[in-house]
Formats: sequence, C-alpha cells, structure tokens
Amino acid sequence: MRWWGWGDPQHAGGLDAGALRLLGESVGVDSEPRPPVALGAVGLPPTCLSERAIAALRGIVGAGGVREDRYERVTHAAGRGYLDLVRLRAGTPADAPDAVVLPADRAQLRAVLECCTREDLAVVPFGGGTSVVGGVQPLRDGHAAVIALDTRRLSAVVALDRESRIVTVGGGMRAPELERCLAPAGLTLGHWPQSFEYVSLGGCAATRSAGQASSGYGAIARMVQGMRLSAPAGELTLPAMPATAAGPGLRELIVGSEGVLGVIDELSLRVRPAPAERTYEGVMFGDFAAGLQALRKMAQQHALPDVARLSDAAETRLSMALAGSDGVKGRLGRAYLGARGYGQRRHEDRCIAILGFEGDPVEVATRRARALGLVRAHGGLGLGASPGRAWLRGRFKAPYLRDELLTLGVMVETLETATRWSELERLHSAVAGAIDRSLTDQGTPGLVSCHVSHLYETGASLYFTFIAHQRRGAEAEQWQAVKRAASDAILAGGGTITHHHAVGRDHAPWLEREVGDLGVAAIRALKSELDPAGIMNPGKMLSC
Amino acid sequence: MRWWGWGDPQHAGGLDAGALRLLGESVGVDSEPRPPVALGAVGLPPTCLSERAIAALRGIVGAGGVREDRYERVTHAAGRGYLDLVRLRAGTPADAPDAVVLPADRAQLRAVLECCTREDLAVVPFGGGTSVVGGVQPLRDGHAAVIALDTRRLSAVVALDRESRIVTVGGGMRAPELERCLAPAGLTLGHWPQSFEYVSLGGCAATRSAGQASSGYGAIARMVQGMRLSAPAGELTLPAMPATAAGPGLRELIVGSEGVLGVIDELSLRVRPAPAERTYEGVMFGDFAAGLQALRKMAQQHALPDVARLSDAAETRLSMALAGSDGVKGRLGRAYLGARGYGQRRHEDRCIAILGFEGDPVEVATRRARALGLVRAHGGLGLGASPGRAWLRGRFKAPYLRDELLTLGVMVETLETATRWSELERLHSAVAGAIDRSLTDQGTPGLVSCHVSHLYETGASLYFTFIAHQRRGAEAEQWQAVKRAASDAILAGGGTITHHHAVGRDHAPWLEREVGDLGVAAIRALKSELDPAGIMNPGKMLSC
Repeated sequence: MRWWGWGDPQHAGGLDAGALRLLGESVGVDSEPRPPVALGAVGLPPTCLSERAIAALRGIVGAGGVREDRYERVTHAAGRGYLDLVRLRAGTPADAPDAVVLPADRAQLRAVLECCTREDLAVVPFGGGTSVVGGVQPLRDGHAAVIALDTRRLSAVVALDRESRIVTVGGGMRAPELERCLAPAGLTLGHWPQSFEYVSLGGCAATRSAGQASSGYGAIARMVQGMRLSAPAGELTLPAMPATAAGPGLRELIVGSEGVLGVIDELSLRVRPAPAERTYEGVMFGDFAAGLQALRKMAQQHALPDVARLSDAAETRLSMALAGSDGVKGRLGRAYLGARGYGQRRHEDRCIAILGFEGDPVEVATRRARALGLVRAHGGLGLGASPGRAWLRGRFKAPYLRDELLTLGVMVETLETATRWSELERLHSAVAGAIDRSLTDQGTPGLVSCHVSHLYETGASLYFTFIAHQRRGAEAEQWQAVKRAASDAILAGGGTITHHHAVGRDHAPWLEREVGDLGVAAIRALKSELDPAGIMNPGKMLSC
Repeated sequence: MRWWGWGDPQHAGGLDAGALRLLGESVGVDSEPRPPVALGAVGLPPTCLSERAIAALRGIVGAGGVREDRYERVTHAAGRGYLDLVRLRAGTPADAPDAVVLPADRAQLRAVLECCTREDLAVVPFGGGTSVVGGVQPLRDGHAAVIALDTRRLSAVVALDRESRIVTVGGGMRAPELERCLAPAGLTLGHWPQSFEYVSLGGCAATRSAGQASSGYGAIARMVQGMRLSAPAGELTLPAMPATAAGPGLRELIVGSEGVLGVIDELSLRVRPAPAERTYEGVMFGDFAAGLQALRKMAQQHALPDVARLSDAAETRLSMALAGSDGVKGRLGRAYLGARGYGQRRHEDRCIAILGFEGDPVEVATRRARALGLVRAHGGLGLGASPGRAWLRGRFKAPYLRDELLTLGVMVETLETATRWSELERLHSAVAGAIDRSLTDQGTPGLVSCHVSHLYETGASLYFTFIAHQRRGAEAEQWQAVKRAASDAILAGGGTITHHHAVGRDHAPWLEREVGDLGVAAIRALKSELDPAGIMNPGKMLSC
C-alpha cells in the first residue's frame, strides 16, 4: 500500500478531462497540484521505546519482529481516513508508533501483551490499517510509549469444516488471501467491503464491518461463529456455534470491540458456496422515494438482492458525470436521458440503483424476477447489465480517486448511518442538508451525494459522499465542522452514528450520546476487566 | 396458570389407555397416583420484609401493587422446571418471595429498584414465570428479603411502525396478547416457544428464547431491534435500529441478561406479515443420518422451512406410541409401517420430520418444492399433511402431559444444546448415551429421545426428552445426576450448554466452563457496573 494513500503504487489515475472540468466548475480545483511529500521528509518523533522494552520485545518475537524503520513507522502512523491522508501527504502525521511489533503466533501475542503491560506500552492493534475513523491512530495517552501490534503474521487457515461451512483463520488473514484459500473448495466468505483488497478479517470483526454484498451475505457480525480474543487479562475463547442462549452475547461484545479490549487473533467464519451465477444490473427510478419503496419491499418480500445500492439524484448525476470514458457512460447517459414513462418527472430527480444477485442459477432467477417485478411496480426501468458490470469493475476504486482529488486540492469524504425505513427519507434530507450547509458556510460549497445500501427488513444504511474545495491550511477545521454537523444531524434524526465504519476516534462523542451514560459505563467496565492497565488502543471508542 | 403445574386449570388429560400401558411397560408407573397437595398445605416461610420496606413499596406502586397473599407468593415461588414442579406439588417449594411487586410504568419501576437498593431487597424479575432452568427462583443470597418483580402491568403497545415493521411494547406484554394486537394489522411476531401461551416478551429477550418457527422467523435475538433496560444503576436505552457498528453489541448484552443486570421494560421487535399460506406436513427418513443431511442442505440451499423438526428413531417410535387416538396415530402408523423403498433398512431406524412453511403462497410453493426435493434426494418419503396438523394441534401441549406423568410418579424432562452440523450426530449419540446410562445406573432405566430443530447454515439444535420412573424421595438427586451427566457430555462434545432455555441456576456451572474465566469475569464486571449492590436476580447465570 502506498504510504501516503491508497493501494497499488502502480495504479494509474482515472480522472478524465470531462470529470476534471466538472470538478473545476462545481467545487474548484487548485491551479498547482499538491503531491505528497517524499517519505524521507515525513516528520517522525524520536522513538520513546526504552532499550529494555525493545530487548524484551525482540526476545519474544525475534529481531525481525520488531520494526523501527521509517517505512514501517510511517505506514503504521495512521489509517486511511481523510485527515490521515491530508496529514501523511503533508509529511505531518499526528504521531507514529515507536515500533511495529509482529507476533507470529498466539504464544508470542500473549507474551507481547504481558510485556506491554509490564513496560507500560500502549498497544494499537493493526490489521489492514484501513480505518477511516481514526481507529489505528497511535495515541500514547500517558503511557511510556506506543507500539503498533501488526497481526499480519497471524494469518493461518486453522481449519475448514466443509460440512458446517465454517472456516477458522488467524485474525491477521487478509480478505483476498482467504478468498484465494477458499476458491479451490468452491467456497467464498462473501465479505466485500470497499477496503477488501487490504483488510484483515480480525480487523473486520473488530470494526463490525459490512461488505458491499451484506444484504445477501450478511455483515461480518452474522458471519462470526466463534473467536478468540487475546486481552491483557487473558484469553476469551468462544467456540464456533450456530447459536447459543448461554448468557449475554459475548461474541457480539468482541465483534465491534475495536481493539480496546484486546486482539482478535483467531476467528471462525461462516462461508458459502462460490456463486455459480452472478447477475449485476442497473435500474432507474423516477425519484428517490420510489426507489426507496422498491428496495424496502425487496427486503421485506423475499426479493432481496445480494447487493442493492440506490443512488440519490445527486449521486446519480455525479456518477453519470464521473463514469469515465469506457463506453458505459455513453450508454448510461443515453438510457438516462432517453428513458420514457416518467410523464412530468424531471430528469434531475431520477435515481439509479445497482442490483446484484448471486447464487445458484434457479434461485437467482426466482429472486431476481421478484425484485424486478417490484422495480416495475414502483415505476422503475431496467438499464441492463452494463451499469452492473461497470459497478463491479469500479467497486474498490473510490479510494484511488480520493488520492487524485487530494492532489487537486479537493476534499472528498464519506460517512454513513442506518435507520428504520420510516425514517430513512427524512434522515437522508437532514444529513445531506447539514453537510451542504456546513460546506457552504465555510465558503467551500460542495457536492453532496448519497446511496442507500445494506438492506434489512426493518431499515437500511445511508452512505454519504461529499466533495468540496479544500480550505488550504485549515483542512482539519473544515473537515471537523462538516463531521460535527453531519453527526449531530444523524443522531437528531434517529440514525446510528455508524453502520459499518466503526467508532474509532472520530465517532466517540456521538457513540456516547447514542448509548448513553450507562452504555458508556458498561463498555468502560468491560475494558477495565479485560485491560486493567488501559493499554489497549487508548483514545478509541470512548473519548477519554 | 395452575399454581402447581402448567396452564389452564380446566385442561383435560391426554393420556389414553395405550399410552398408559406403554409407560407402565417401559418405565413403570406408581400404583397410587400422586396428586399435588392443596394450596393451603404449601409450606411458606414467614415474610422477611420490614414494615418500612412494605410501606415504601406501597408508596410507589399503591397498595394493590404489593401482594403478600399465599396465591401470589406460591405462584412466584418457582418457574416451571421439573424440580420446580416436584417441589410445588409436594408443597415444599425451595423458597418463596416475601412479596410480589407490580410496577405499572417506567417511573414506578425505577423507584422500586431504588427502594430495593436502599432496603437491601433482592429482586427477581418475573414475566411469564415459565423458566425451566431455575431462572425465577427467589434466592435471597444474603439480602434482607427477596421480592418478585412481576412485569405484567408493563404491557402496553407503545408504537407500531408498519413501514419498518417494528412494534414497540412493554416488557411484560404476553406473547398471545401481542399476536392479538398485531392481527388486525395483518402482522405477526412469529415467536412460538412451547411456553407461548404464558411468556412475556421481556422474558423471551432476557432468556434469549427461540420459538418453534425460529428456522424461518429467527430467534428472539434476531427480532430485537432496540430495548430499554432498567437497572439499579440507571437506564440503558438502545433505540430501534436495523444494525449498527457503534461499538460492542450492547443489544446482544441485554438479550440473554436473564434479569441479572436489570429489567427489560420496553423492547422493539421486528414483525412480519401474517402468513397467507401455512403448509405443515410430515416426512419420513430411513434413518437419522439421512434426515440430518436433508435438513442441513435445506438450511444451506435456500430451502429452509420455517419449522423443521427431525425426530430421532426413539422419538419417532415414542410419538407413534403416544400420538393419541385422534386418528392421526392410525394413519401415521400405517404410513410408518407400510412405507416402501428402504430395502434392508429396519423399521426401528426410521425418523419422522415435521416441515412447516409459512408466507406468501408463491414463495412458500417455491421453497417447499426445493425442500421436498432434498427430502427425496435423501431417500425420504412424504407422509402428507396429517402429521403436520397433529403437530400444530399439540405444539403447546407437552407441559400438560408432564403434569399427568408427575401424578403417575414418572419423571419427564427436556434439555437442549446446539452445535455445528459436523458434530451433530456424534453429540446426539453422546448426550443420549449419557442420559441413558445415568438413568440406568440409578436403577430407573428410561426412554431417551431427541429431535433436531432450529436450523442454521452452520448447525442446529438438539432437543432431548427423557422419561423414567421417579426415585421416590430422591427426585432431586435423580434429576441432578442426569443433568450433570448430560451437561458434561454436551460440553465435552462441543455443544453449547443451552440453545434457548437460558442459563438460570441449573446451567451456571457449565456456562462458566463454556465461556471460561475471562468470559465470566466480563459478565461479572458488567453486573457490578449495572447492579452495584448485587440485588438483581442473585444466584442466576453465575454460580456465585
């Protein structure tokens, strides 16, 4: 992964002349590009790790398992949120771990945690490092030093139970590697977050991640059947079970624990047959409300696609404009502009949805027919397979685009929530409005767009993307103002502060409002028990 | 509810001459029936509640909200487990609450909890009182006195969100009353535990209950969208959400909290349309293993019935013998004995399954066709609708039968677990063998039977029923020996100590083995935070 941004260093940019013109006209771009500084120019604090602590850590994991070099410290200095990248590119990360430690097995992991307790070292569990909420920020919080505990060596396939469809893997296993391991058995996990190419599965569980196909495959919480948490106070092992009524849901406590209770070093996940059939397509609705009704009925009437994403009118227009020049844009544009049957409806209200169906061909055909029936019943029109193919091709590309925009001085950020169907349209307006007003008030009017995804019988998620010209020198203040406005609007409108990005540092104040004093007290009590010295991922989830 | 047993006092017995003969021949019955003692003969300890405490409680809930009469104390003295009934019928309950307190709203509930903290009163939350694991046993645990906190007045429908399909109700709402409230809107909760006629929904959530149709509708944990827990330390309110990634799963912590953290006084539940089509039928497999394979594939191949129950060979034979004389037995018997196509297979190996499909007619037809295809693919034969009708008629009747057997000096008890598909057959043999050996070793050889139900993609539940002659005067020792043997076999075989009966008092030692020291420590830490004085349902979930 690029130390200053996303993904493959060889990845070519995707912005064409039309998109650049649109950006220039709508939010404005810098006249001079702002590339990231050189790695050597990144400011790093001197390491605070004592000789004794380093020797002790090396004694556990070997010399190669303790890294203090610039590259490792910088690549573990931040996640992949907007502010992380702004700071990294400028060469001014908020902080950096004093060392990166790589235990190779459970015994080493336990010993490292014991050593960190003894030496008063804060521990930031680090999987793929893709957090967008400050979840891997190396905060010292008064401890003598801080290490990034990288799980990448804990990546074995421990067991595959084909009959029960459960795979047990090390917490550091990367999602693409697991799919490669499952493919020969004809199986798939089906967990495809946008960060798929880099995430670890322990990280997915710790952050309560949901993949793009969660409507069909379920979010990670549904996949986890058992797990082991290595905490400073010991190990909490929950064997793989389809279900249990043995007390409060301890599995669900570890899922979403974000490294503040310990490290998920092993987990058992439900897998499914790799789909024999995959059908992705686009449909268009006259307006957002019609699309919402159709999606709700799919979720409530046995017609749920595995992937369902309804763009609001703004995202529809934006994706039309940014679709690139690979031919899809032209076909889509013609369909969009030429669609008949909407009477007096304005083009500007139209909303595109991507529907993806996976599974055995007969089952897919049945479900798809039902879903498309609901599309038609709500005035929707089919756009054929090309929007689906285009979406599949581009599904992991947005973070690359963000890097390009940052070079142009353009802020791009996403945030998300979920709520009940009855509140969804109101919440959409309220949050989009709050973002829009905050950007305008700061003199950087932006483009605010949203899609509905992750459908449930009782509600769905809203995923907002906004773009604006950066306030040079005040990037953090600009971002914080929008974040605050959007988060306040989410809570006021009955949404959750996060459906699948987790809490991290950014959402902590709103988590506290969402679960209340007693909810916070419950989390603190758990933390005190499992992490008595408070060394695990300090400053995350709870504000202090 | 009968104070000494189950249900409607007017309910007539169901054992016919053939069943009586079978019981006599197989396990033996007492020559003299043993009816329960009269209510007036039940031994009750004098109330320990101080005048001051009584006055304080009356000041909160009114004079009618504090009951100290014999009937209320006896009906709140025990749940409906085997030992509960043995003791009640003998007029020797283990203990009884000093008073039954009935708060009528949230403010009264809060005030009662504050009063109990002040006056050092243990509080046993009491919904339908149907616990079969000692979950409502009035244990004093060193406190000055113990009250049963009956939630029956907290039973309002607070809100019905038809679009989101969420109903919000008081925790004391009874399951049948909720169905009556939902019916005019064409909706159903679809939660049908065997105790359906009496359970409260707060109680279902607190005990992590699963209904008979959980394969289709999900267990209660899947239905709960939000809730409020009133704890001594305050209120924990989690708004109704389809999903959230805001930290550890606090909803899942309250689900399954069994009254030890507080009282679930309000909850929001996912509801569904009342099914337009309901098809229940019987099928027969050549042996248990074939039935298991068919059920597994149903769960893994989009062919899951809403109700699926596969009896093992012993339960099949027993239900044939006990089916009663309503005509079903005769037809079933002929089908059972006359079925062709099993070649050399013995009659004694055959296993009957009940499959129930609910929903819209087209969807049901599709799913049912797929499921029956899998039945045929595993050598199963259709037995038609009459076994399904018979099962539906009798689905809530087993507890009545237990009362009859107790009068005859016959012990009948059930216990359950869940595990992965790959372990299910082994666990079935191990647990059935352990129960059988324990009964035989005690000189009371029994009938041990089991069914598989509550199907998931990764595994299922095993539900054991066993019958034996009571050891007169040593009923508790007899039961404890079997319970210990079965529970040890469950844990050793990779099962959970309970899939849907909860932990209560009976399963506490095995919960501790299942979740380990750190799991227990986590639960204790939560309890200390939410219930600092330790007044909430002492002695439950954790052994001390």
